[in-house]
Amino acid sequence: MSTIITNVAVVTMNETREVIQHGFAAWKGGEITAVGTMDMLEALIAEERDDEMDDETGESFRLIDGKGGILMPGMVNLHAHMGMIPFRGLGDDCRDRLRVFLLPMEQRAMDAELVYLSTKYAAAEMLLAGVTTVFDMYYFEAEAARAMDEMGIRGIAGETIMEEEACDFKDPYEALSYGESLMKKYQGHTRISACVAPHGTTTCSAGLLKAAWKLDDAFGAPFSLHTAEMDYEMDYFRETSEQTPAGYLDSLGVLGEHTLAAHCIQMTEADLRLFAKRRASVAHCIGSNTKAAKGVAPVSRMRELGIFVGLGTDGPASGNTLDLFTQMKLFANFHKNETRNRSAFPARQVVEMATIGGAKALHMEQKIGSIEVGKRADLVLVETRSANMFPIYDPYSALVYSAGPSNVDMVFVEGTCVVKAGKLAEKSVEVLRGELAGKMAKTAFAEEVLFSL
Amino acid sequence: MSTIITNVAVVTMNETREVIQHGFAAWKGGEITAVGTMDMLEALIAEERDDEMDDETGESFRLIDGKGGILMPGMVNLHAHMGMIPFRGLGDDCRDRLRVFLLPMEQRAMDAELVYLSTKYAAAEMLLAGVTTVFDMYYFEAEAARAMDEMGIRGIAGETIMEEEACDFKDPYEALSYGESLMKKYQGHTRISACVAPHGTTTCSAGLLKAAWKLDDAFGAPFSLHTAEMDYEMDYFRETSEQTPAGYLDSLGVLGEHTLAAHCIQMTEADLRLFAKRRASVAHCIGSNTKAAKGVAPVSRMRELGIFVGLGTDGPASGNTLDLFTQMKLFANFHKNETRNRSAFPARQVVEMATIGGAKALHMEQKIGSIEVGKRADLVLVETRSANMFPIYDPYSALVYSAGPSNVDMVFVEGTCVVKAGKLAEKSVEVLRGELAGKMAKTAFAEEVLFSL
Repeated sequence: MSTIITNVAVVTMNETREVIQHGFAAWKGGEITAVGTMDMLEALIAEERDDEMDDETGESFRLIDGKGGILMPGMVNLHAHMGMIPFRGLGDDCRDRLRVFLLPMEQRAMDAELVYLSTKYAAAEMLLAGVTTVFDMYYFEAEAARAMDEMGIRGIAGETIMEEEACDFKDPYEALSYGESLMKKYQGHTRISACVAPHGTTTCSAGLLKAAWKLDDAFGAPFSLHTAEMDYEMDYFRETSEQTPAGYLDSLGVLGEHTLAAHCIQMTEADLRLFAKRRASVAHCIGSNTKAAKGVAPVSRMRELGIFVGLGTDGPASGNTLDLFTQMKLFANFHKNETRNRSAFPARQVVEMATIGGAKALHMEQKIGSIEVGKRADLVLVETRSANMFPIYDPYSALVYSAGPSNVDMVFVEGTCVVKAGKLAEKSVEVLRGELAGKMAKTAFAEEVLFSL
Repeated sequence: MSTIITNVAVVTMNETREVIQHGFAAWKGGEITAVGTMDMLEALIAEERDDEMDDETGESFRLIDGKGGILMPGMVNLHAHMGMIPFRGLGDDCRDRLRVFLLPMEQRAMDAELVYLSTKYAAAEMLLAGVTTVFDMYYFEAEAARAMDEMGIRGIAGETIMEEEACDFKDPYEALSYGESLMKKYQGHTRISACVAPHGTTTCSAGLLKAAWKLDDAFGAPFSLHTAEMDYEMDYFRETSEQTPAGYLDSLGVLGEHTLAAHCIQMTEADLRLFAKRRASVAHCIGSNTKAAKGVAPVSRMRELGIFVGLGTDGPASGNTLDLFTQMKLFANFHKNETRNRSAFPARQVVEMATIGGAKALHMEQKIGSIEVGKRADLVLVETRSANMFPIYDPYSALVYSAGPSNVDMVFVEGTCVVKAGKLAEKSVEVLRGELAGKMAKTAFAEEVLFSL
């Protein structure tokens, strides 16, 4: 049976960035089958009526009134650590938060069950905010993959590989082989896939980076790692070699079309040109980067060079919120201010980065990132009834400068409704939180939690 | 009858910035009468029961279960143009938006009724986001004052005075005298007051600035104007004098304790010292300033010098959203990044700026800005049940980095409930929008509005 959402402004993000001011979109079996203006709807409905009927309703299609909202492609979150919900808000303003809080807590408390429950919670939060695809990178990623699958989100589970002992594997080559099984397991899955994700440029040996690259390459999976982000990383390269992180990756032969480098804050012009030449992509995490006072990545130049750049929230311990509306706002303000040009990065370009831009960075643009016939039905209905959504002269502008995650009314992934009237369709945040909090209370988190319910 | 809200984390913002992790607050007749921990509640209730009973309920107090939310002081928006809702989203990324869209549209379409309806709508939006006090600055301010009064918000209506013909008065001295009547009219009003607000340092003559200053001074009202914000303003000073905007204001004798200068982006060290010496305050509008690529005001230095700084949203045509949660997030990220210090401006300081800091800038800190016995009951209950509000280790951190306007559950101004369960208690956004849209449709806005409902 087809579903048709009507009476919406369709922000298609197709090649010509067409906006249908008063339109509809239809899908069937997870695939978008029609997009058009409202006056084309009658013909479509007549055609649908000739189609096979549903036994229960006696109808061959289901109509949803979009009530004048904005229908946009599901957003793509290019960099997240979904297992880290238990750390959110812990030592936010602490200078060496990573070593004081995060790493010790991770060693003490993180286990497979916590990753599973945290990832489910994070998936709920993202879906509620209109994120339909996420690139996750953490430990125990079989649990993350299972959690994402259950929640109905589209996700890539990146098993983190690093030289040091991790909370899931002491030996990185064990983690690699665990990652490989995961990649095999999800081959052919509609929504979930996996990869191995090296932690960073200095936290993996050259051999490990190459081994991970080889594995990801064999599966056509993204090779994603933290790059040119941390002061310690940049110091290391300055002190030990004449290479930059980007140059180093290239010298190892692991910078290519399937490289998705997260952050890329401290990049030279040569680094950027190298990225462009190798067709590597960037997951830009403006909120996390600036909250940590790390600077603003040169996205303006990246785009000039044709590098694919999308947006990431980073983990909830770094960026706190997991929605891309917050990132779009921060992105626009930081990059306009950075370039001292209020016309730089107009709202349309910002929405691009959160949708089709992210899809391109993952090489999934044939499948997601825009509302076009033949693509998967990953759709977000943004309501325009709330106080902040009036007036609307330009839907891009409303999405970037006015909207927030609370304006997300309905969300569909593969055509299935996962959010309805701003609530999870089949799950409950209260239950997911109860499970996660229950688990946290049994671990080292308990003593730290002051205000959680 | 008293009202007691229980089972909340009270972010008092009192002198010691005390946070009561599991507490309550009580008020009566608009005044806060008790604040304490939950174990002190029984004694309070026993005392209240001896008090006069309500005829209807047979109770002498009303209990509200805060359900583990965060109770914070109502937020103070130091700079807004509430009449400009019809312009929101118009030409957002246009280089000379002010001259292409705003000024011509203002001349063509703005009238008393539109200011009234727009201000009501803006007040609704602010209340829903936890803003309980606003400094407004626009035209036809008698209508703005009336609108704010009807909506139950606390507000200062600043009648804009400028040399050029405005949409309400051709002659600025007529505007001055209109402002004076307004100031007289609202003397003694519990929530509403008025002032005259010169447009800016170059858009008013020296004589006009002095006349406005004299009038505001006589009423003990804020003297607020755009300062050191615009390129044309800075060019003017560079080309015509050796003074800076701040130096110029001081030379006229209009820089003093009651000066509330908006923006102050382009300030020299001497300007800042002058502000500190004169005890002038700053309305910092980080969202509006950076979206317009104007730069980041030196707030770190302002605070070092002891200058009172609070946050402003600016008008909906500039900053789009009217909530201070967005401003707090932008503030933290921009100023941490600006100072390259992730520990700069910890969340507590950011909440300070949105509450007691704003109150001090308005010299209203005896009345509002914190939850303390004897102050007015302007209170915001932020719910912590939504997905983004878990876990909470530190309520300041949750308010700044996680919360958004949609987490506002209840709002009280002068002890009166204006927002309940995230909705206006006595009004309807739908009705307010209908009235505003109806009026807009009758004016020059009609042809421009594409997507509004």
